[in-house]
Amino acid sequence: MNSVKIGICGLGTVGSGTFNVLERNSEVISARAGCSIIVEQIGARRDNPGCATGAVAVTRDVFEVAENPNIQILVELIGGTTTARELVLRAIKNGKHVVTANKALIAQHGNEIFAAAQERGVSVVFEAAVAGGIPVIKAIREGLAANRIEWLAGIINGTSNFILTEMREKQRSFADVLKEAQALGYAEADPTFDVEGIDASHKLMILASIAFGIPLQFSKVYTEGITRIAPIDVEYAEQLGYRIKSLGIARRTEKGIELRVHPTLIPETRLIANVNGVMNAVLIKGDAGGPSLYYGPGAGAEPTASAVIADIVDVVRTLNTDPKYRVPYLAFQSNALDDTPVLGIDDVVSSYYLRISAHDKPGVLSRVAQILSDLGISIEALIQKEPAANQNHVPVIILTNRTQERLVASAIAQIEALDSIEGAVVRIRVESLAG
Amino acid sequence: MNSVKIGICGLGTVGSGTFNVLERNSEVISARAGCSIIVEQIGARRDNPGCATGAVAVTRDVFEVAENPNIQILVELIGGTTTARELVLRAIKNGKHVVTANKALIAQHGNEIFAAAQERGVSVVFEAAVAGGIPVIKAIREGLAANRIEWLAGIINGTSNFILTEMREKQRSFADVLKEAQALGYAEADPTFDVEGIDASHKLMILASIAFGIPLQFSKVYTEGITRIAPIDVEYAEQLGYRIKSLGIARRTEKGIELRVHPTLIPETRLIANVNGVMNAVLIKGDAGGPSLYYGPGAGAEPTASAVIADIVDVVRTLNTDPKYRVPYLAFQSNALDDTPVLGIDDVVSSYYLRISAHDKPGVLSRVAQILSDLGISIEALIQKEPAANQNHVPVIILTNRTQERLVASAIAQIEALDSIEGAVVRIRVESLAG
Repeated sequence: MNSVKIGICGLGTVGSGTFNVLERNSEVISARAGCSIIVEQIGARRDNPGCATGAVAVTRDVFEVAENPNIQILVELIGGTTTARELVLRAIKNGKHVVTANKALIAQHGNEIFAAAQERGVSVVFEAAVAGGIPVIKAIREGLAANRIEWLAGIINGTSNFILTEMREKQRSFADVLKEAQALGYAEADPTFDVEGIDASHKLMILASIAFGIPLQFSKVYTEGITRIAPIDVEYAEQLGYRIKSLGIARRTEKGIELRVHPTLIPETRLIANVNGVMNAVLIKGDAGGPSLYYGPGAGAEPTASAVIADIVDVVRTLNTDPKYRVPYLAFQSNALDDTPVLGIDDVVSSYYLRISAHDKPGVLSRVAQILSDLGISIEALIQKEPAANQNHVPVIILTNRTQERLVASAIAQIEALDSIEGAVVRIRVESLAG
Repeated sequence: MNSVKIGICGLGTVGSGTFNVLERNSEVISARAGCSIIVEQIGARRDNPGCATGAVAVTRDVFEVAENPNIQILVELIGGTTTARELVLRAIKNGKHVVTANKALIAQHGNEIFAAAQERGVSVVFEAAVAGGIPVIKAIREGLAANRIEWLAGIINGTSNFILTEMREKQRSFADVLKEAQALGYAEADPTFDVEGIDASHKLMILASIAFGIPLQFSKVYTEGITRIAPIDVEYAEQLGYRIKSLGIARRTEKGIELRVHPTLIPETRLIANVNGVMNAVLIKGDAGGPSLYYGPGAGAEPTASAVIADIVDVVRTLNTDPKYRVPYLAFQSNALDDTPVLGIDDVVSSYYLRISAHDKPGVLSRVAQILSDLGISIEALIQKEPAANQNHVPVIILTNRTQERLVASAIAQIEALDSIEGAVVRIRVESLAG
């Protein structure tokens, strides 16, 4: 049987998971691949006690792996975008194929990396960069190749989904659940990257590029975190038949492409509304295939290793293939990428949940309704709650029909200027995700 | 740009859908594939008014397509297992690659077809044979290549799922919903193939082969339909927190492989329990990737066409590839197939829902409990209902812990022999599907 020699850079959670699964499942992996995958060298700043590297050569200098002439595939699992970028470009320059789990690297430097790889005729694959153990990149790039993809929506940050699930199931506050998530290791000490939607926006950019065949343009993703979601909105959403999820949404419209990460009300009857805890799911609407959904663990040592190793096997199968027959980096041939512009958030079309705190006196509701009506915004549902004890203002909840974001922003400004309104209007987008 | 010439055999629902999607989306398909896919010839017994074949040559003799020297890929969409088998073998003999949507053909004649194809060095691919538009074959064969797959469970017959969904949501009888499904075109005039689980067992056999690397052995799949599911059991299941779904289940155990299609109680909190109507879903447990689920439309012209065309693109990419680097027919190299035996249903381990109609007098329950206890079967839950008006027997519902099927069969025989029991014991298997 043939064998292929690989180098693994990075021996943290994902690196050690990859090494361990390659070792444990070597028999089934080679029975599938038709060839043995040999870890020739590991580059890591420090050893990992969870990973018995045994006789495998370990170097503290990851660039040695990129220079090792015996290695055909470099597996980049060091994370970050500075050294990782240099490492990947060096490997490519040396004619090595690259497997990476690094979403930030691909989202921010993918165009440069793919251009270098194309020039050199090598593969760069990144299944593990989005939604961990779920083979959703493969599904989009290959499984749905017949389709014009119309839109996709994903729960692609497990930390945010865990927090929102706990808030709903146990009526807890964001700050309270965040502390628990940190204790459980689901959230970092500095949780910004997850709870502000940045991690999800990296992943969304990658999914949108391969779905629509557009270049990576991370700076154009609109990003809004979950930090301002209040328990009361989770509760009202539920009363209205909705759940609040942090979604990454990409949609092709006539005017351009929407790319946005934000908390979203979705009907509780949708399958994706029932994806709970740290699990991930991506719902994709193709014009031929219809709606399809891909669900599984979005992170963790072994789920991510599962994706990394599947990529390694794919690369092994095409080592001797003319590059023009390989699956293109961003799903579409590089000369067929689409220059459709990404829309600013003001041009996005959505439905909206608005929560207004109104003084309990006659005429307030009619003034709010007039503002919306003047802007051409229809009201889908309106609920006026009883005032809480000792309070003289009442919550008013409005669900609008689909309208442009700029109109809703204008409506909110006018409503907030009314003297019978208390504080800011809470605004959460609503998507039906109808197939 | 290169082009590849294909022949389509069969111009029914799937054939015309494939032709139409190839035509409509030719631009995005070739932008992905890097080559144009040209329909060179169609073989069909009759034209299809929903399909404007225009200048494409149409023959009434499908074997002409298999003999056409200009055609590199034959797309078999005629269905059935007699002519289809001959056609596919003829195409292979002539060095053509084959794409098929024919689950019965693959489940029953796959071993022979793959042996011939391997001999001739051509591809035979069949994504469309299971779960229509969901790229689940690709997910198992490639996306989960790093995993030892432990088990999978799928809703893989849309007709049965539609009927069970309607029975639950609208408290209707099987016979009543079946009539509606026939009127809607979801069920055939003779619905046996769908409602008796035969269609699902073809698909399960294919999924199990590629998951475990075992040869196709369709006759060993245990198959039980949904025709005897009564509304009262749907209702009791719901009261216990379960839904009844027709599942195809494949599980690797220490003693052998379980392959079974039957109605199953699953906890309502599982995502797959919420897959409703004609939709399909497959839940797969890998040792590294954990549980992942794939959901979408399981049938229909365009979803199936989506899978057929994705297969065509995959074949196009590997036309010039040494066959040893291609993805193996059954996911594992042919010399690495596994001879683990398939277990008979008596050796299967499951939990059970039993409904017993007992005369309302003292001592009946204790005798039933004694029978179960003597066989080592533990009771997980027991509910005794009130007798209906004018009835002197009461329904007793028992949920057992996991036990061997042969023990439950013995218990049922003993319970039915008690003179305080009315009629047959209703037995439905229960699976937790815990990830």
